[in-house]
Amino acid sequence: MINRNDIKAVTKSIVLGGCFVFINGFGTILGQTSTPSDSAVIRSIYDEVLTNGEAYENLRVLTKTIGHRLSGSPEADQAMEWGAELLRNYGADHVYVMPVVVPSWTRGDIANASVEMSSGEKFDLHITALGGSIETPDNAPISAEIIVVKHLSDLDTMPKRKTKGKIVLFNRAMDPVLINTGSAYGGANDQRGQGAIYASKAGAIGALVRSLTHSLDTLPHTGAMYYSEDVTQIPAAAISTVDARKLAKLYKTDPGLQVTFQMNCEALPDVEQGNVIGEWTGSEFPNEIITVGGHLDSWDIGEGAHDDGAGIVHTIEVLRTLKAIGYKPRRTIRFVLFINEENGNRGGIKYAEIAASELAKDEHVYVAAMESDAGGFSPRGFSMDATDTLVDIVKSWKPLFEQYNIHRFKKGWSGVDIGPLKQLERRPLLIGLVPDGQRYFDFHHSTSDVFENVHKRELELGAATMASMIMLIDKYIPAP
Amino acid sequence: MINRNDIKAVTKSIVLGGCFVFINGFGTILGQTSTPSDSAVIRSIYDEVLTNGEAYENLRVLTKTIGHRLSGSPEADQAMEWGAELLRNYGADHVYVMPVVVPSWTRGDIANASVEMSSGEKFDLHITALGGSIETPDNAPISAEIIVVKHLSDLDTMPKRKTKGKIVLFNRAMDPVLINTGSAYGGANDQRGQGAIYASKAGAIGALVRSLTHSLDTLPHTGAMYYSEDVTQIPAAAISTVDARKLAKLYKTDPGLQVTFQMNCEALPDVEQGNVIGEWTGSEFPNEIITVGGHLDSWDIGEGAHDDGAGIVHTIEVLRTLKAIGYKPRRTIRFVLFINEENGNRGGIKYAEIAASELAKDEHVYVAAMESDAGGFSPRGFSMDATDTLVDIVKSWKPLFEQYNIHRFKKGWSGVDIGPLKQLERRPLLIGLVPDGQRYFDFHHSTSDVFENVHKRELELGAATMASMIMLIDKYIPAP
Repeated sequence: MINRNDIKAVTKSIVLGGCFVFINGFGTILGQTSTPSDSAVIRSIYDEVLTNGEAYENLRVLTKTIGHRLSGSPEADQAMEWGAELLRNYGADHVYVMPVVVPSWTRGDIANASVEMSSGEKFDLHITALGGSIETPDNAPISAEIIVVKHLSDLDTMPKRKTKGKIVLFNRAMDPVLINTGSAYGGANDQRGQGAIYASKAGAIGALVRSLTHSLDTLPHTGAMYYSEDVTQIPAAAISTVDARKLAKLYKTDPGLQVTFQMNCEALPDVEQGNVIGEWTGSEFPNEIITVGGHLDSWDIGEGAHDDGAGIVHTIEVLRTLKAIGYKPRRTIRFVLFINEENGNRGGIKYAEIAASELAKDEHVYVAAMESDAGGFSPRGFSMDATDTLVDIVKSWKPLFEQYNIHRFKKGWSGVDIGPLKQLERRPLLIGLVPDGQRYFDFHHSTSDVFENVHKRELELGAATMASMIMLIDKYIPAP
Repeated sequence: MINRNDIKAVTKSIVLGGCFVFINGFGTILGQTSTPSDSAVIRSIYDEVLTNGEAYENLRVLTKTIGHRLSGSPEADQAMEWGAELLRNYGADHVYVMPVVVPSWTRGDIANASVEMSSGEKFDLHITALGGSIETPDNAPISAEIIVVKHLSDLDTMPKRKTKGKIVLFNRAMDPVLINTGSAYGGANDQRGQGAIYASKAGAIGALVRSLTHSLDTLPHTGAMYYSEDVTQIPAAAISTVDARKLAKLYKTDPGLQVTFQMNCEALPDVEQGNVIGEWTGSEFPNEIITVGGHLDSWDIGEGAHDDGAGIVHTIEVLRTLKAIGYKPRRTIRFVLFINEENGNRGGIKYAEIAASELAKDEHVYVAAMESDAGGFSPRGFSMDATDTLVDIVKSWKPLFEQYNIHRFKKGWSGVDIGPLKQLERRPLLIGLVPDGQRYFDFHHSTSDVFENVHKRELELGAATMASMIMLIDKYIPAP
């Protein structure tokens, strides 16, 4: 399996990499740069995943037999059982659920919207409730003139008589010139998260939000929205980009544009579910923890295939693959299927709370946490939220990944679920897988986030890249 | 449009890049490294393409109003007219056709195949004729026992009595562990190109070839096959990977497996078509030529969307974009829509022949040639077939592309159409766009190579990356 090119690549890595030596909490030298055998191990990881990979079939089962799985739903319960069983089957030493109380919300079976022009002409909109929205009063339609704005702050400068009793459409598009589509999403999602708050403060009776996607199509994309305690709750929904563009255009010539929409979504009582955890005990430093995970919950339309079925099967495939090649971890690797990333992050918060208390009692040290929550596309590299020292160690491994077309090793965002670990007193390396992001928001939070839109080899390459990085982290990253 | 990060990136590029100074054929200093303004120009190129890009709409027109366009077909004529008109509309100074006599072949309307087991059980195969194959005798079905092999050479070691009168299935899969899917294709396509020659030499009456794709599905993929003059021509077809796997499995337990297939494809007389060329005259060195192109012909199933509609609209978008941002080329940029890449490369060969004669007469110098013929997926970088000196100049621009996630700058394969230019006495830089290749062979040469499988932003990023590189080449690459 190993050829001369591998050896060459590693030799280069050693020359380029310099030498990082650290003394970890247990007096052991860690953190030296990689060795030629690391290159061979990485090759065997990619070979194993690309030849015998089970991530794609696991994703098929998750998406096609369970389907979408919003926190609090029976499907989320089923997914927890499915995940625990897989972790057991693949040989995790200890599989358990860390209980988390999660919100519960149901979309109901009514969501429709239409527009009437001053001329009397009417057409329907493609609409879906935003997650967390209240129903329209008495589940009946509401109608009002529409106000189209681009920014939350646009409402501050409008006289309240202009907005009172209206329905506000937030119509800011994701910026197409940003190469990082996640940045374009981040630059537009205040409309979805806080649109209802701003619209309610302006006296509006409802909020519509342009779907967060680059794609010009008729698919509405859901996602979390929130109310603040100081506002009257008003219903909020997403409409497709084609509809939003059409409405914004009509609005310029027909300010009397009337919108009607109706939804019967509903908040339900909180439910106890949890993070599903599989542990593989470390042979040398069992109380040093490396976390790798994605989130098990998804939005309640589509199948949550890229978001974040991909991250879940990536995580499980790291376990399967490292076992298959006979790897023996030095630290304990924890495979975590987080709950409730989509509408609360209570799983990630609970995990970090427990980590902090264990750390305070010297029970565990959290060395690193890796997340996959950006889809199952061709991997491009990693984004790290960590000290410069740790980032530099990871960057020194770049030559090992060159032949796998993994080039991106940068500081930046790691992941929602592992984010709260940043607050730990002894701060772990937080690292997120970065897949190619150009197609992600076509599917994200919509009915098209289905298994058929995930590519087998792209998914597998992500898993192999993660497993390789986990192996290097296990061997070389010093405990904080 | 320009921010401080751009300036930083370029400053870094200058520090890293060293300084290349060359005296070109006209006594002018070229080849110094990039300047901060290059970064600003590149940003404006990406902004233009991502905001006002027309590549996707042009691809829609090519694929949906003309469709597939095999050399010699009326659709290829239509595509030539369409391409010439677009080049004119986007402001090429001089648009013309370089005549090329191309082969002509028609698939006919019959292609079917079935298998009968010794038990009498029967099933159909998913089949398509390989391009260039003869029909089955009298367009009637042929039937014979099947022989399943993995390598052409497997037939050499078999006694001829075992292969005589049989139908051979070449069943070597593309190697899944190769990260570069083009290498996996290259490692398997001898079966398609030469399978009929080897099978005929072994006395077989027909050849079937496992489709060249990683995907396990029921789509047959066509492609060029050839006969040598010393063999009896026998019909050759591709079958789907699912069928090939099934046959190979059955063959192990049922050596009496009988295959029947029928095709009425047919070779037609050669036709004059040509390379469509649009020139944008250089302001300083009009007789120094930079070529950028893709191929206009496609296979005659699907729509030739990725192969190579993408390369064609990339090429045209380079012209549109550089005009739109107000760029003034120093050299003459030639936008070439090559003919007959798929089954003969007569367009590429003719282009290089004329280049050689112009060079001999000192009429033109060929500085560089770029090709896009690997699909419209997210660009990853470039592959160069050139001297180390030129490769090093291009590599010094790497920091300029970092923020666009373009990382790959390596020596290697450039493109079929521009390949013959390598033989020029004064050798140009040959450079191929390298998009992410994981999905390419799912579609390649099959009915699924359609517009719907091309992603707008991925396509646009390829065009912007090419336009940026053409600008740098125009400014800095020394004439050979």
